[in-house]
Amino acid sequence: MNVTLDQLPLRDDLRGKTPYGAPQLDVPVRLNTNENPYPPPPELVADVTAAAHEAAADLHRYPDRDALALRTDLAAYLSGATDVELTCANVWAANGSNEVLQQIMQCFGGPGRTAVGFEPSYSMHPIIAAGTRTEWLPAPRRPDFSVDVAAAAAVLKERAPDLVFLTSPNNPTGQSLDPSELAVLVDAAPGIVVVDEAYAEFSDRPSAVGLLATHGHKLVVSRTMSKAFAFAGGRLGYLAAAPAVVDALQLVRLPYHLSALTQAAARASLRHADATLGSVALLRGERDRVVDELASAGYDVVPSDANFVLFGRFTDAPRAWRAFLDRGVLIRDVGIPHRLRVTVGTPEENDAFLQVAVDVVTEELS
Amino acid sequence: MNVTLDQLPLRDDLRGKTPYGAPQLDVPVRLNTNENPYPPPPELVADVTAAAHEAAADLHRYPDRDALALRTDLAAYLSGATDVELTCANVWAANGSNEVLQQIMQCFGGPGRTAVGFEPSYSMHPIIAAGTRTEWLPAPRRPDFSVDVAAAAAVLKERAPDLVFLTSPNNPTGQSLDPSELAVLVDAAPGIVVVDEAYAEFSDRPSAVGLLATHGHKLVVSRTMSKAFAFAGGRLGYLAAAPAVVDALQLVRLPYHLSALTQAAARASLRHADATLGSVALLRGERDRVVDELASAGYDVVPSDANFVLFGRFTDAPRAWRAFLDRGVLIRDVGIPHRLRVTVGTPEENDAFLQVAVDVVTEELS
Repeated sequence: MNVTLDQLPLRDDLRGKTPYGAPQLDVPVRLNTNENPYPPPPELVADVTAAAHEAAADLHRYPDRDALALRTDLAAYLSGATDVELTCANVWAANGSNEVLQQIMQCFGGPGRTAVGFEPSYSMHPIIAAGTRTEWLPAPRRPDFSVDVAAAAAVLKERAPDLVFLTSPNNPTGQSLDPSELAVLVDAAPGIVVVDEAYAEFSDRPSAVGLLATHGHKLVVSRTMSKAFAFAGGRLGYLAAAPAVVDALQLVRLPYHLSALTQAAARASLRHADATLGSVALLRGERDRVVDELASAGYDVVPSDANFVLFGRFTDAPRAWRAFLDRGVLIRDVGIPHRLRVTVGTPEENDAFLQVAVDVVTEELS
Repeated sequence: MNVTLDQLPLRDDLRGKTPYGAPQLDVPVRLNTNENPYPPPPELVADVTAAAHEAAADLHRYPDRDALALRTDLAAYLSGATDVELTCANVWAANGSNEVLQQIMQCFGGPGRTAVGFEPSYSMHPIIAAGTRTEWLPAPRRPDFSVDVAAAAAVLKERAPDLVFLTSPNNPTGQSLDPSELAVLVDAAPGIVVVDEAYAEFSDRPSAVGLLATHGHKLVVSRTMSKAFAFAGGRLGYLAAAPAVVDALQLVRLPYHLSALTQAAARASLRHADATLGSVALLRGERDRVVDELASAGYDVVPSDANFVLFGRFTDAPRAWRAFLDRGVLIRDVGIPHRLRVTVGTPEENDAFLQVAVDVVTEELS
């Protein structure tokens, strides 16, 4: 078995690549993967446990392949959050929004097709494009990381991609797009537009779900329970779209992709939406405090509608990342020169982070 | 949102397709998806519940991206079952063996590459090939559904596929291949050979895992906890291979693909392997009884090393399938003319099935 990776008949486009993923390090303050820092409340833990107990008795049977009950619950949540009438037929779910996005690319992208994204943005978009052999066409944001909507619309008309990825709020920069701006971009796109709203609950902007009534023939809105719902460990991503889009995804989904435990636990977690979304309000307040205090300390801070903040400008971002880590605070180097991203944590975690930020500002800032 | 599937810019190769999946019907006796009919024992349910409880408290955090503890446990089980020394580095896991197979095709198949399978076999193999744009080259089995090893080796030399799929025991026909036969085929294949051992625990044949020491540069053995481990609802597939193959799969896996609940529940379930594998011994006995009684009733029965039996020959298999369903027994029409597949159930379920089989034999048999 002493074969090496180089000796395997791997696809050429994978050679030399490294696996995606932030370092999973054991440090006192972990503010690197945009998790919700608040553990699930005891009632939620109890309810998930009870749901798992019930599901466990039937584990010898395959789960509901169509996850109808879970999709119905997700539709109810999203209807309430967006004031748009949605049913089970509008909603699809998978093991994290990454799998949702992969299924979208399998349906509407793939060999001979193209996808445009406005970078810097969520780095999994081009990786999933590569995994599905969809040609990725990166387009720029403004130097301040906002989207120049007129310029972006021109790019979409010129390049005519099969897929467009818009991230609102945008990870890792934090800004969101208004539905009026999204509508311009959907109108300009000839194909399917995916609005990735992984961080929507942290923003005041109305959701793109409101555009489905008028733009449902080409719009998909993806969401996740990882962030606002504090369910990163449970892996549940979902989307809202026209029923025909949901039908299309069922042509490429692996059968029984969502386990009985995942379906049961996600439903239990959704029943506690009020409690978990309560933490979102706290985090939004903390985010604004982190932005203010970083600015006061002398940092250049990108405005954020999400649960993270991009800040700088560092002389050497990888060195600054290490300086934070050496002081017990794990943040994220997202590959943007002179910038680092910090997830908003609990007040205590943010205090610890801000103290380090003050300590290192003179030596690390350019 | 009144767009239809036809109006969406779906990939051409998906047009006109229907989603994979057996009907999920609520009938008294369900013998159609090769599930283990024995519910998890109470101790296993309790242990899965306790594991879920522990995992639930940390659901706001992403799971271990590399699932190291679970892979270590799977390696220990498989080492014990096969007498081959395996570690975590030899094992990879995903949400069902379908996802494992999809990741293998993403690494070693894809556009411009080919895969050979000997049909009839597991119908998801060509579907996952299509989903990853791997060209599927079906090759025949003998009329009795066994593999003509010399002819198959010649096919592999002539077609020189990038991937080969061998299913042992073969679903939906039931026969297995001996390691000496597998070795001939691996030697004849220029690329990667996947031996799909989803039903291995039901067979007396030694596992292909025993060939990894000599053929690890091109051999992958996939397994599942769905069948023998009565964990279909938990969705856990895995594979054994050279560590370099496991490294390759990490280039295409979606990050955090295995939820904290899946990892915890699968580990809990593995701790009860003795109990669940005890049901396998019962099922093997029942399988042999079902084969004998079907033959006595006048059916043509394919020998089976698995937990299902392919039998016929029916005048009209879809009509015969309906005749069983009308009498409260759901079996599977796998698309093989004049044959149907029945999963081996509990003694009571098998009695019910066999009674119907006797009842319909004169009207349905050709």
